[in-house]
Amino acid sequence: MIVSTCKFRIRYAETDQMGYCYYGNYPAFLEIGRVEALREVGIRYRELEESGVMLPVSSLEIKYKIPLRYDEEITVETEISELPEGSRMPFSFKIYNENGDIATTAIVVLVFASTKTGKPQLISDELLNILKPYF
Amino acid sequence: MIVSTCKFRIRYAETDQMGYCYYGNYPAFLEIGRVEALREVGIRYRELEESGVMLPVSSLEIKYKIPLRYDEEITVETEISELPEGSRMPFSFKIYNENGDIATTAIVVLVFASTKTGKPQLISDELLNILKPYF
Amino acid sequence: MIVSTCKFRIRYAETDQMGYCYYGNYPAFLEIGRVEALREVGIRYRELEESGVMLPVSSLEIKYKIPLRYDEEITVETEISELPEGSRMPFSFKIYNENGDIATTAIVVLVFASTKTGKPQLISDELLNILKPYF
Amino acid sequence: MIVSTCKFRIRYAETDQMGYCYYGNYPAFLEIGRVEALREVGIRYRELEESGVMLPVSSLEIKYKIPLRYDEEITVETEISELPEGSRMPFSFKIYNENGDIATTAIVVLVFASTKTGKPQLISDELLNILKPYF
Repeated sequence: MIVSTCKFRIRYAETDQMGYCYYGNYPAFLEIGRVEALREVGIRYRELEESGVMLPVSSLEIKYKIPLRYDEEITVETEISELPEGSRMPFSFKIYNENGDIATTAIVVLVFASTKTGKPQLISDELLNILKPYF
Repeated sequence: MIVSTCKFRIRYAETDQMGYCYYGNYPAFLEIGRVEALREVGIRYRELEESGVMLPVSSLEIKYKIPLRYDEEITVETEISELPEGSRMPFSFKIYNENGDIATTAIVVLVFASTKTGKPQLISDELLNILKPYF
Repeated sequence: MIVSTCKFRIRYAETDQMGYCYYGNYPAFLEIGRVEALREVGIRYRELEESGVMLPVSSLEIKYKIPLRYDEEITVETEISELPEGSRMPFSFKIYNENGDIATTAIVVLVFASTKTGKPQLISDELLNILKPYF
Repeated sequence: MIVSTCKFRIRYAETDQMGYCYYGNYPAFLEIGRVEALREVGIRYRELEESGVMLPVSSLEIKYKIPLRYDEEITVETEISELPEGSRMPFSFKIYNENGDIATTAIVVLVFASTKTGKPQLISDELLNILKPYF
């Protein structure tokens, strides 16, 4: 299992006129979480893409439990709970607010695809070998 | 049942370096869809909020089937399939690409809440009366 | 001279907790304005880029005079006041609010560049010939 | 004079299909820079707003010299070079890319305003007293 956390503040740009963090900004937070989780195990998404593999999103589920507010320092906890199989790679997330409460939970499924054709492809052995020791 | 459609183009701002519309921009598209659906039945979200009622998002589910691309004119179809009960209001969505294919499906659940306290509250009789004839 | 207008509403996603349209969303509005101005004279930016020419932004100036608000229908007026020379293409903008007041003025300078090398290049004769009749 | 720096990475959400950081995301970077500059001298923008004072943007100028790219760690250097007078507060910025080159320069002028009326007002003596020792 891979579990990784990162922290950052809600930007003013991300608020809406309710005074909350706009619900459409959370996918970008989840993206930061998974990029940092991959970085921790030695996979840099930028290099992955340069090598011809991209990871578009196939599905997204978010439960908004407690609103996040401007300037709050949030903690995104990203979990890869199973070794990816085939072309799918699921991630699950918890976002903690400044008080340490679970403000949000989310699941994102990525798909390995070719940057040239856009078509799904199997996860490479190279990546599998990097990930295996964690499972 | 309320079904409403609106059309707009993917902005350059909404693309990412895969050359696709970034997955985090879809929630804003869904928001446009539901605001227009409400406008069609005579409810202006801006006025609702001015009157003290807001509709934060409780949950979001998106399935990304076909990528959307820059300058593509998309059609967002918003459906309210059941009369809201209690404090919840679910919407379902289909996004059609320029070829008329279903590129995305989504479900969003909103919650009626007070702009003053932030707490959930029951849908008002006034709103129910506007919505009832459609169901 | 080319003058083009387009209209659209401020999205909820674009508000901030002041209750205004966030200042960082205006560049996307200006981008819509100039893409529509080019479309009106028969130039589709998407095709330009597919043909190997891109137009990154070199400089941006915005004066925020009157705040824009949620759901307001704004009018972006885009003006190309001189035939582009060399590799630079300046645009000027006025954004009108729902009352018809000038809420914002802006100037954006684009640069013709190669999508392959990223390097600036001269405007092509083909584009110049399309633009010339307007000046 | 107040000079403050902060570092963060360009998000995937912030790229566009040119493969660059989209020009409309820079205002949010500048906002982070000035919020951190104020935090360093003991002013928390969130509290300022809670106390009834907000700082909407009056004007913005950006020069884009070198494109920023995905996952690049940028350094935003924010400078307040003169003690604010009246209701205006100008900030100037340099954004350094990962190589240490100046990728962007910018100037933003904020205006002190009342959160209740939206009208400009003079900078308070309390804020002036916090800022004075730096000039």
